[in-house]
Amino acid sequence: MNSPPKRRLIILTEGKLDIHSAKTAVSVIRYCRNEVVAVIDRFNAGKNLEAIIGVGKGIPIFSKVKETLHLNPDSLLIGIAPMGGALPDTWRAHIRESLQNKLNIISGLHTYIGDDLEFAQLAAENRLHIYDVRKPPENIPVGTGKAKEVKAFRLLTVGTDCNIGKMVTSIEITNAAKKRNIDACFVATGQTGILIEGSGIAVDHVISDFISGAAEKLILDRAQYKFLNVEGQGTVVHPAYSGVSLGLLHGTLPQGLIICHQPVRKTLRHFEKFPILPIPHIIELYERLAQPFQPCKVLGVSLNCYGMSDSEAMREIEKAERETKLPATDPIKFGVDKFLEVIQPLLP
Amino acid sequence: MNSPPKRRLIILTEGKLDIHSAKTAVSVIRYCRNEVVAVIDRFNAGKNLEAIIGVGKGIPIFSKVKETLHLNPDSLLIGIAPMGGALPDTWRAHIRESLQNKLNIISGLHTYIGDDLEFAQLAAENRLHIYDVRKPPENIPVGTGKAKEVKAFRLLTVGTDCNIGKMVTSIEITNAAKKRNIDACFVATGQTGILIEGSGIAVDHVISDFISGAAEKLILDRAQYKFLNVEGQGTVVHPAYSGVSLGLLHGTLPQGLIICHQPVRKTLRHFEKFPILPIPHIIELYERLAQPFQPCKVLGVSLNCYGMSDSEAMREIEKAERETKLPATDPIKFGVDKFLEVIQPLLP
Repeated sequence: MNSPPKRRLIILTEGKLDIHSAKTAVSVIRYCRNEVVAVIDRFNAGKNLEAIIGVGKGIPIFSKVKETLHLNPDSLLIGIAPMGGALPDTWRAHIRESLQNKLNIISGLHTYIGDDLEFAQLAAENRLHIYDVRKPPENIPVGTGKAKEVKAFRLLTVGTDCNIGKMVTSIEITNAAKKRNIDACFVATGQTGILIEGSGIAVDHVISDFISGAAEKLILDRAQYKFLNVEGQGTVVHPAYSGVSLGLLHGTLPQGLIICHQPVRKTLRHFEKFPILPIPHIIELYERLAQPFQPCKVLGVSLNCYGMSDSEAMREIEKAERETKLPATDPIKFGVDKFLEVIQPLLP
Repeated sequence: MNSPPKRRLIILTEGKLDIHSAKTAVSVIRYCRNEVVAVIDRFNAGKNLEAIIGVGKGIPIFSKVKETLHLNPDSLLIGIAPMGGALPDTWRAHIRESLQNKLNIISGLHTYIGDDLEFAQLAAENRLHIYDVRKPPENIPVGTGKAKEVKAFRLLTVGTDCNIGKMVTSIEITNAAKKRNIDACFVATGQTGILIEGSGIAVDHVISDFISGAAEKLILDRAQYKFLNVEGQGTVVHPAYSGVSLGLLHGTLPQGLIICHQPVRKTLRHFEKFPILPIPHIIELYERLAQPFQPCKVLGVSLNCYGMSDSEAMREIEKAERETKLPATDPIKFGVDKFLEVIQPLLP
């Protein structure tokens, strides 16, 4: 859990540079202590990054790794997470060029870059490191329910869909708590979270019998904190990822949940045949699944109002508060003080 | 999905020879078309197998593999599934002796026997096969919800705990349906089921992002059947295995569920701090989790009344029927005709 050395990153986004697809790029630029010196994206080279993704003022976009070398980068970060995680062939040239030019590789893909013979050999020849963020530690145990015995207040973000604001909400709450001098920790469970925090386990990439065990290990390893903010994954009614969501819940055994939702989204992302369920329905399901083992309540609603005006967002927030009788906010637009007011009295 | 050749098995149980721990041995003896010629268990050598586990009349128990060779076995089956699946050191001698005496190895452990350098080398030298049943096929896709479009009636067994009768219930319903000339198929999702059926995927051993995808692949590959009986796993309120249970549900997208329960069990097996929830509570949870994607109801209650007299079992069955308003039975004691009466009108 020691922080890794501070890096100078270039981020590969290659045609997926928009606020939804480039989640990793956006979040690393927004939250990571490493410096992002350039973005590689031949479809957007020369354009204004901040105008496209809302963050990254002044960071240039180039077509090729070679064009960034005058900025002294030390690592290439593969900054997009395609469905399923496989490595597109077109990116191989960028990875090769990076290794040939003495850049380390950081990847959150399902396919391990370090297992690729060509890249492993290039890295070895150039004494470079390939950091496959999703690779789980050895010997993750089976879950036992022991997270319950940890004194820390465990807050897990859940949601009505994937990729809807759970990581951002957990980070914003952690940062707001730290500002109040609360001994808080962000617990990363996905590749982007791990890149930002410098530690964590990608629970979607462990053998399925060990999902809860991985989450439990994250909690037990951080038992000294007062307030653990566990990054949620997926949702419990999902045709692909519900297993990960539920295993994470039962490994964490949280006392509190924050539910994340995007008002404009009507169907599951990438699964358009499946509707997003109403927030109260998902709240009830999560509470019923959690409560047999541990008293647990949803404590607030985190709305992702990206693209709305502040007054439109306020209307959605008021609507969510009426529907759920819970405090609601958009963490990016209006901060998370409302959540802290509810959570702080519950901390040990 | 072609059936493997018929084998002559010896089963290693090594001190775990009781009805609960030797689930694989019991079920392989009961249901598998391969012949079991002996059991290896130095703690029970010379004893009467049927008296210990209720099946296997006349099958001898020996201490060592060598003592079984006059019975012409061709494979050693590792017949117990310890928690977490790791390979106990004491079993290595039996595996070594088997390979040295020209026996193939069949294992359902998490630890792949074929990845062990010593065993892999011994197998290669002796032209033997090590069949790690839990090893998933390559390239399992992410779940998409496509199982819903398959015409077959998909019946999934669920339960109030692990190791409570889901596989047995699915097999008994399949066999009873076949007797009625229904085009039924048992869909194995765990190591014992795969050993019995000769095909399947151990869904607890795929990368967690692909649990639903694995279940969905099993369904799509068997779309030609009218009645698919999918072997359930775990339960949705469990400190270790809930993720696997829910992923299996959303990959299968069943129209019907049978809930399995053991009346004498009051706490989760191996997790004594956690109570077994009432059957109606688990029924409601499963239906709420399934129904957003696919109309789905629990259709019956399968009780595991092992160790009870028939009249005690009947009292439990009547109690379950009163509590749930559903047909209940113990498949081993009283068969599954009650379930077939309900299911048959629902088949395509």
